[in-house]
Amino acid sequence: MGKLISLLKRLPSVGTHGAERMVLWLLRESGGRSVAMDLSGALAVAVEDVGECPVCGFFNMKGGLCACCSDSGRDADSICVVERATDVLPIERCGIYHGLYHCLGGKISPLDGIMPENLSITSLLNRVRERPGCEVILAVGSDVEGEATALYLSEILAPFDCAVSRLAQGMPAGAGLGQADAVTLMRAMEGRKNMLS
Amino acid sequence: MGKLISLLKRLPSVGTHGAERMVLWLLRESGGRSVAMDLSGALAVAVEDVGECPVCGFFNMKGGLCACCSDSGRDADSICVVERATDVLPIERCGIYHGLYHCLGGKISPLDGIMPENLSITSLLNRVRERPGCEVILAVGSDVEGEATALYLSEILAPFDCAVSRLAQGMPAGAGLGQADAVTLMRAMEGRKNMLS
Repeated sequence: MGKLISLLKRLPSVGTHGAERMVLWLLRESGGRSVAMDLSGALAVAVEDVGECPVCGFFNMKGGLCACCSDSGRDADSICVVERATDVLPIERCGIYHGLYHCLGGKISPLDGIMPENLSITSLLNRVRERPGCEVILAVGSDVEGEATALYLSEILAPFDCAVSRLAQGMPAGAGLGQADAVTLMRAMEGRKNMLS
Repeated sequence: MGKLISLLKRLPSVGTHGAERMVLWLLRESGGRSVAMDLSGALAVAVEDVGECPVCGFFNMKGGLCACCSDSGRDADSICVVERATDVLPIERCGIYHGLYHCLGGKISPLDGIMPENLSITSLLNRVRERPGCEVILAVGSDVEGEATALYLSEILAPFDCAVSRLAQGMPAGAGLGQADAVTLMRAMEGRKNMLS
């Protein structure tokens, strides 16, 4: 049981106390230990079956294409570039995008030793070359490293036959002006959109 | 001292305990009570002198125009419409805007009984009429009432000779995709900007 607690503790945002409560719940209170058995089985299956899509880098099953790349109903002329595979999930949840993805595997961050050659950029360029006239949507974060990555990608994509766009920067939904920081306000002002045209 | 505490308690985000600590600090620990005297004097002067600019509704001194309206160096062809006078401060801090302001005095919110006729909209229309070809920048919040106010103003301004724009909606500065809510991501995707043109 000590080993189980110390393993659960290593999960993101789980502390000692939380791990102990999880073990207690799994073994005593979840009813007949079936949840623990199911979890054990699901973990083993995931380790065995879940891999990386050879095209876009998102999660796939048993070495095939991922759910997006294998879905012929999606718009193959849009490639949304994200930092990590987990960034696909919030975009899918918002439900407005129906194109394909490309996971870079990180963002350019020289301080952490992550340079462009450590990211899946060559495979992105190959995909763009195979799909003339496509749109590449840079959906990287709005932090310094995300900005650097977007700038680098837009420069390297410029000679290709593709449109390159970037997620809008501005006021988050539901926010008043008092809550916005100066940089967000500056970008919102710079990127202001005409309402009448 | 009880009266002072109960008055300080009425300030935004000050509780009983905080008010008591303020009084203790002002009378005992601030050194010779000069801060308390200065505060008292500054409050009396503010009550006497600070009013509302007759043109834009921002704070002014002694009944004249406010610092923005009286500054001939500012671009009089831009009117940035904000909900409240305090919203001018974050925009001034971000340093990118050099035009004039117009404070509505609130936002359309039928549930709170605030209708368009309760806001300074007539004076805004008069200003726009006097300044053909100007740009009206709607810098109201991104919440439901802010959206409704922006939509109402854009419709009422449509027949005038002016451009109407709205602060960009999208990813706030420094945020990763994982932190963004679905509505923000949706707006960021819809409003994506071309990086190559």
